[in-house]
Amino acid sequence: MKLATIRTADGRTRAARVEGETLIDLGLADVGELLARPDWAEHAARAEEPVAGSAGYAPVVPRPGKIVCVGLNYRNHILEMGRELPQYPTLFAKYPEALVGAYDEIRLPPESDQVDWEAELAIVIGRSVRRAGEDEAAAAIAGFAVLNDVTMRDWQYRSPMWLQGKTWEGSTPFGPYLVTPDELPGGSRPALTLTGSVDGEVVQQADTSDLVFDPVALVRYVSTILTLAPGDVIASGTPGGVGHARKPARYLTDGSVLATEITGLGRSEVKAVAEPVT
Amino acid sequence: MKLATIRTADGRTRAARVEGETLIDLGLADVGELLARPDWAEHAARAEEPVAGSAGYAPVVPRPGKIVCVGLNYRNHILEMGRELPQYPTLFAKYPEALVGAYDEIRLPPESDQVDWEAELAIVIGRSVRRAGEDEAAAAIAGFAVLNDVTMRDWQYRSPMWLQGKTWEGSTPFGPYLVTPDELPGGSRPALTLTGSVDGEVVQQADTSDLVFDPVALVRYVSTILTLAPGDVIASGTPGGVGHARKPARYLTDGSVLATEITGLGRSEVKAVAEPVT
Repeated sequence: MKLATIRTADGRTRAARVEGETLIDLGLADVGELLARPDWAEHAARAEEPVAGSAGYAPVVPRPGKIVCVGLNYRNHILEMGRELPQYPTLFAKYPEALVGAYDEIRLPPESDQVDWEAELAIVIGRSVRRAGEDEAAAAIAGFAVLNDVTMRDWQYRSPMWLQGKTWEGSTPFGPYLVTPDELPGGSRPALTLTGSVDGEVVQQADTSDLVFDPVALVRYVSTILTLAPGDVIASGTPGGVGHARKPARYLTDGSVLATEITGLGRSEVKAVAEPVT
Repeated sequence: MKLATIRTADGRTRAARVEGETLIDLGLADVGELLARPDWAEHAARAEEPVAGSAGYAPVVPRPGKIVCVGLNYRNHILEMGRELPQYPTLFAKYPEALVGAYDEIRLPPESDQVDWEAELAIVIGRSVRRAGEDEAAAAIAGFAVLNDVTMRDWQYRSPMWLQGKTWEGSTPFGPYLVTPDELPGGSRPALTLTGSVDGEVVQQADTSDLVFDPVALVRYVSTILTLAPGDVIASGTPGGVGHARKPARYLTDGSVLATEITGLGRSEVKAVAEPVT
């Protein structure tokens, strides 16, 4: 099943099941509200009426209670950098204000001139879990979606903590939709090809089965610390190929088109637009 | 004005104005809901009916949209450590699941044996602001409250990012209430004495006017990155005296009583209770 939050012509949103070109109305405001229902899967499966007046994709979950991001997590990239595989995941946060829909514009703020890309597989939680065991963690994953953890590198490195480079308003495309694990090769540990491109040129490519900490391991780890709740999101980290590591470094500029695609999960394509200096 | 979120005997909460020993019912579920009203100050000032069946303090704002924490921010402590004053604040996050009321228990999880204290002045936002100027930032501060950014040091230092040591469920007392700036010496840059103690022994003490980045500067800085919204919280950092820096190091243990007090803002006192290994 593919689930999305759809903007409607009246300025609101609706949770929808995506059936090819058709969007089925789930009678709820967004996927966050849907996942809060214990029967969300059955509820989503049995709806039949199309959404009236669709106006494009909002972030899959527009206001997650938590967005947990993971640092360096692709094996090949860590090894190619000459580092050892980490014993524990590196976690940091992003606030919901950062999220935009899969085909929205992202903002290049005048305060940064180092806006960089990080194509990622996002995990969306569908069930409350704390200190989850293996099976419980797998069952808590509602599905997977495309996310790009767009990062202001100059701000990321202003202080020892990355947060201030990671959570700029309107910077992070999330979607178009989530896909439930049963539809993906590898299920809750999906083996998918992740591709990031800028102006049509592929800049990042990796297999999501190359994660050091896979989605089930991440759910277990984070849920040790606190309860993961329906609608929460874990962004699982990015592979090599970011602009900051290139020589010379390369960043998004006004008009850049950033595409992020994961096989089976669709594609987001956002235009970077310079915010006016106010 | 003093504003609090009060638990009631029926298991719900109510926003209240604190008048000495009396709690005045503001007709809303909590302080977050109150602050979302543009007329919150007038609304809170004119209520008259006492809360029925009060059962103690919940976190001042039980579910802030964002909790932004600030790293090392006390001038004396930075200088005594031989460091230079930072050019930018160090920001990291905490999720709302961490919060408890001012007289609740805090949990010592079996996964950590380095649970430490960080007494802090918390800033509560009362108005949406983005890229706030000085006056706008000052006006966006609804008030100040006591918070203790209790930290699992072993988890904090597992990876380069501190988040996983900072957001354990049920670890962070917040309250008892917020006090509006007009009632405090120094107003939106309050000059108050912050004191942390463990089992009656003072372990941290500082003047909140010693902050490198004062509350107005923090609101300006964070609002550059994204919109600060009513109910959001900024925890402004802790002075010297944490247990991890002591020789030998000292941590909270089962039964430890952690008190956090700020002149004019009241006192929280929580007992640390070991969670059973499950």
